[in-house]
Amino acid sequence: MAGSSFGTLFKFTSWGESHGPAIGCVVDGAPPRIALSEADIQVWMNKRRPGQSRFVTQRQEPDTVRILSGVFEGVTTGTPIALHIDNVDQRSRDYGEIKDRFRPSHADYTYFKKYGVRDYRGGGRQSARETAVRVAAGAIARKILGDSVKVRGAVVQIGTQKIERGNWDWDAIGDNPFWCPDRQAAQVWEGYLDDVRKRGSSCGAVIEVVASGVPVGIGDPVYDKLDADLAKGLMSINAVKGVEIGDGFATAEMSGEQNADEMRMKDGQPVFLANHAGGILGGISTGQDIVCRMAVKPTSSILHPVRSVDKFGLRATPVAEAMMACVLADHLLRHRAQCG
Amino acid sequence: MAGSSFGTLFKFTSWGESHGPAIGCVVDGAPPRIALSEADIQVWMNKRRPGQSRFVTQRQEPDTVRILSGVFEGVTTGTPIALHIDNVDQRSRDYGEIKDRFRPSHADYTYFKKYGVRDYRGGGRQSARETAVRVAAGAIARKILGDSVKVRGAVVQIGTQKIERGNWDWDAIGDNPFWCPDRQAAQVWEGYLDDVRKRGSSCGAVIEVVASGVPVGIGDPVYDKLDADLAKGLMSINAVKGVEIGDGFATAEMSGEQNADEMRMKDGQPVFLANHAGGILGGISTGQDIVCRMAVKPTSSILHPVRSVDKFGLRATPVAEAMMACVLADHLLRHRAQCG
Amino acid sequence: MAGSSFGTLFKFTSWGESHGPAIGCVVDGAPPRIALSEADIQVWMNKRRPGQSRFVTQRQEPDTVRILSGVFEGVTTGTPIALHIDNVDQRSRDYGEIKDRFRPSHADYTYFKKYGVRDYRGGGRQSARETAVRVAAGAIARKILGDSVKVRGAVVQIGTQKIERGNWDWDAIGDNPFWCPDRQAAQVWEGYLDDVRKRGSSCGAVIEVVASGVPVGIGDPVYDKLDADLAKGLMSINAVKGVEIGDGFATAEMSGEQNADEMRMKDGQPVFLANHAGGILGGISTGQDIVCRMAVKPTSSILHPVRSVDKFGLRATPVAEAMMACVLADHLLRHRAQCG
Amino acid sequence: MAGSSFGTLFKFTSWGESHGPAIGCVVDGAPPRIALSEADIQVWMNKRRPGQSRFVTQRQEPDTVRILSGVFEGVTTGTPIALHIDNVDQRSRDYGEIKDRFRPSHADYTYFKKYGVRDYRGGGRQSARETAVRVAAGAIARKILGDSVKVRGAVVQIGTQKIERGNWDWDAIGDNPFWCPDRQAAQVWEGYLDDVRKRGSSCGAVIEVVASGVPVGIGDPVYDKLDADLAKGLMSINAVKGVEIGDGFATAEMSGEQNADEMRMKDGQPVFLANHAGGILGGISTGQDIVCRMAVKPTSSILHPVRSVDKFGLRATPVAEAMMACVLADHLLRHRAQCG
Repeated sequence: MAGSSFGTLFKFTSWGESHGPAIGCVVDGAPPRIALSEADIQVWMNKRRPGQSRFVTQRQEPDTVRILSGVFEGVTTGTPIALHIDNVDQRSRDYGEIKDRFRPSHADYTYFKKYGVRDYRGGGRQSARETAVRVAAGAIARKILGDSVKVRGAVVQIGTQKIERGNWDWDAIGDNPFWCPDRQAAQVWEGYLDDVRKRGSSCGAVIEVVASGVPVGIGDPVYDKLDADLAKGLMSINAVKGVEIGDGFATAEMSGEQNADEMRMKDGQPVFLANHAGGILGGISTGQDIVCRMAVKPTSSILHPVRSVDKFGLRATPVAEAMMACVLADHLLRHRAQCG
Repeated sequence: MAGSSFGTLFKFTSWGESHGPAIGCVVDGAPPRIALSEADIQVWMNKRRPGQSRFVTQRQEPDTVRILSGVFEGVTTGTPIALHIDNVDQRSRDYGEIKDRFRPSHADYTYFKKYGVRDYRGGGRQSARETAVRVAAGAIARKILGDSVKVRGAVVQIGTQKIERGNWDWDAIGDNPFWCPDRQAAQVWEGYLDDVRKRGSSCGAVIEVVASGVPVGIGDPVYDKLDADLAKGLMSINAVKGVEIGDGFATAEMSGEQNADEMRMKDGQPVFLANHAGGILGGISTGQDIVCRMAVKPTSSILHPVRSVDKFGLRATPVAEAMMACVLADHLLRHRAQCG
Repeated sequence: MAGSSFGTLFKFTSWGESHGPAIGCVVDGAPPRIALSEADIQVWMNKRRPGQSRFVTQRQEPDTVRILSGVFEGVTTGTPIALHIDNVDQRSRDYGEIKDRFRPSHADYTYFKKYGVRDYRGGGRQSARETAVRVAAGAIARKILGDSVKVRGAVVQIGTQKIERGNWDWDAIGDNPFWCPDRQAAQVWEGYLDDVRKRGSSCGAVIEVVASGVPVGIGDPVYDKLDADLAKGLMSINAVKGVEIGDGFATAEMSGEQNADEMRMKDGQPVFLANHAGGILGGISTGQDIVCRMAVKPTSSILHPVRSVDKFGLRATPVAEAMMACVLADHLLRHRAQCG
Repeated sequence: MAGSSFGTLFKFTSWGESHGPAIGCVVDGAPPRIALSEADIQVWMNKRRPGQSRFVTQRQEPDTVRILSGVFEGVTTGTPIALHIDNVDQRSRDYGEIKDRFRPSHADYTYFKKYGVRDYRGGGRQSARETAVRVAAGAIARKILGDSVKVRGAVVQIGTQKIERGNWDWDAIGDNPFWCPDRQAAQVWEGYLDDVRKRGSSCGAVIEVVASGVPVGIGDPVYDKLDADLAKGLMSINAVKGVEIGDGFATAEMSGEQNADEMRMKDGQPVFLANHAGGILGGISTGQDIVCRMAVKPTSSILHPVRSVDKFGLRATPVAEAMMACVLADHLLRHRAQCG
């Protein structure tokens, strides 16, 4: 059935293949009178763009977003916002070698078995190129969330190398090509990844995304829990194999005492003394930071003689941020609908 | 907004609180002419029922399911199937102590902040009692999947204690109160849990659910990926804080070579040599076993002087199975709709 | 697929057959803290009830509604509200004569061809009994709309007999068994219908429903236009064969000048001088009365030796009101979600 | 909320304003391996195009459709199909006169009250230009329905002038600019409309759309009745104020005997002797022709000194056909999902 839409009240519907003329999406349900320009979106697109360092695939896509509808005289009109991104880097090539061949650990095989037809030119719809539209939609979601909500992501593990949490510095992320919040780890990672790259190998990663400033009460109690929708959004990103909220899998080893987020009254308001829950209780936001992590598997492409370390992992951070922003914007509107 | 439904083509909508007169759900979209009786559902309900051993809460609920519609002369008619479960064990009590108090690590606080009102009698809608209807709906989903598809779950970790994967025996699960597939581990766990219980503590768990016999081609490629919908379904279960598909978070530490599921031609058919992917590539089933895991946090109730080891963890296995069955049944119908 | 739900943000999902043990629905998405009791719903149920006069089927159903969830201490909690109505009048009978026979102008044939199975006991899911749950859901929708919005219906035509619009008096409706707003017409109708009844015949009807007090700006501009959703809601009622908004089919014969609803400024506010549009322009409410009409076909039952004049037509008015209330409540929440 | 999508399994999501750079839609859920080219769509676009005769607005839009995704080597791939239509005729003009003014019987006022902002350049999203994408989506729906299903429309009334049903000839429609199936009436209409036009007036119309070859069993029994979805689809077209199925409003004046569609057995198959029901019973297709009618109100534009007779009415026929085709394709997939 129709499965190319994400969200309920704030919803985007995407289209496009990696080797077609363009990709894009329709963002529907955005409130009116929100200031929005192409530049507001482009800034996030540029962060996701491949070809940023020697560690990622060198496809050169400017990923220029055009707004084709839904914005008039600098503000949203409340009608659908069509976003359009031309595919510029469609290097023509000889597909003879791969036309009749399923790439291992790719979806070539499952697509073909499902649809009985496949676009053999380079992944078609399964390509990570699709994630560009998520970032574009996420930029609009951020506008809906407003300046008081910050959605930020970081790579906390590359292969076997983890960050030291005590070193966390959000400002460090822009200073290295790995989205690494630990300056010391970033230096180690450079050597580690060069080594992986020289061996012609690849590695996976763990990415953490954090939303600050989300008001208490956003979410839904049963099937559309805020964490359930975040899990779906993150797991729908290419190559993601695991999702955690708060302390995640580590809670299995904890006792109830260790895992409890005690509350105290302070100036007449309840205050949490910890955030093992990751900012969500019973599917509803607590007002604390919302914390998610996702595992990205290593790339398994056999097509590039000198394999990039990670075709996608390093670019997945802005995509994860975007999906989180979209889920939050959707639930913000849902909450407003029901609870005023 | 309305968030009490799960699924798209095979959909159930649930209602009810732990201290109301009953709970139930409406299962909509089930194909006609499927043999279905109350006994077909009850067998799964009985597996989830609390009060099965000294390790879980002793609430005595028979959880008898009645079918109020949608079945005529022993088969489904294609119209909505209403399932109704009376709440029998509504021990009246004095709520004075908890009426004005938020239980830590429970959703009391977030419900109240969201809705401005709460049912203080015992969790209301946030209670794990709600999961009974998931199991009931899952029983119908299994009927749609048919006998060739098996959905089975097991507890693979309790607190710090993990199973030995080489010992896995599905038949072992029914022989211990822990859903443990490793007979040796089950013995160890008994002592471990008695110790936890004596300390008045609790612990978390990791549950693995596996679907065998799912045909290749089920799923959707982008936002409604089969793994994304499984992640949502599992993460929506009370107390779940993490979800993995296939090798999950372990893939972050793997190289592309280690993680690749190579294919060989055998009798003219492609055969996978491994299943790191957990039976899903690009959001679509490969025909291999579909493998998910979820982390359940330890209970944090402060109300019971002698705390049960795990108020919910041990009963979460049939709930996880049910959610997996529902997601698979939904995607089976979705696939049939689009691809015939 | 699952098609037993109506609405998006304010949504109800219904179940039950005319000869099963009960019927009911789950109302999801209702805002919290709305005062709601069973009596609030029962008052509307009583208006729809069969057996009210000699002109309608004499089935004796008390149609007592029970609220099984979602209401605590007299107010809605924001969680799903389950409504339950027992089927009392299930007279056991010999179905031999109709078991293998399709009743003309009934859905027996189409149900059987669709599902390959049918409930031969009396219409099953196609029975007008299903409309009882619409009225129950509509009662909750009215609560959401609040006292400032009035949704009222009237029968404006029975067979060939129309009312005189100049005689319209809302208070007249309760004084005759026909929901007729024209006291003089009501007297004529009594003789007309007695005559139809004596001939063993039946006749159709036209019902008009009017919503007053709906604020300007409710609705959606393209596919989910307010009038489109009203058309769907009314056309989904059993036996309805036509729906009009405002001047409806009469506009085909009008000129643009005749059909224009001119606006004037009055005290700084635009005021409409007419309401040919029926309170909706471009799918969005104008703030004027929203006016719909629907045509109900005559009953065609051959089972009752003395046929009731209209098995359903006369009881369709509260059902039409309920559907209008549900559409309006849904769009009110939708508007609040997007536009605040 | 997001309301720019139509359909459930076969779904299209549209975007674009009359004075933006382009309009378009994303068609999601189309089955794979259906032969589809731009020419297949263009043939239907050309039928809707303005500027076809002196009786309609002379805007010159080539309405050239481009397929940007979802089709590879001449067949659908099962992934979303993006359709793109450039707006060519964006004559720049001085909007001073209308910028601060609400056009009567247009949605200017309601849009502004809803969104607090409006695109004053010519209707924006409310423009009938939006209907072009419906025709494009409908062309794909026809492909899904296949050659055995024919969806055809005709204008059966212009202003006060009706056709003679005995003269109905589908072949006549292409021979006059009015979509009139009655050659004699078409001649009368020409003089009638010239007269209306000379007076600077306008008139409404009634359009009938008929689907032949729809198999028995398509549809849904309660809220998503086939007729309910058709009513929504047609009522969502600009300027439509009424919808009928089969004999529609005329059934109000009929007796049960007159309105009954008797069945006889013929060669072991039930055959209907009439089709007052318009091919739908209980929300499900009977296998007979599905017959709908819709009323289009007269245009009320005050902007054109020489008003076109009907800015939209005459072009609404292909739009109505398209909406009917989309509803049928959606229900065909829905039926396949549930009933196989």
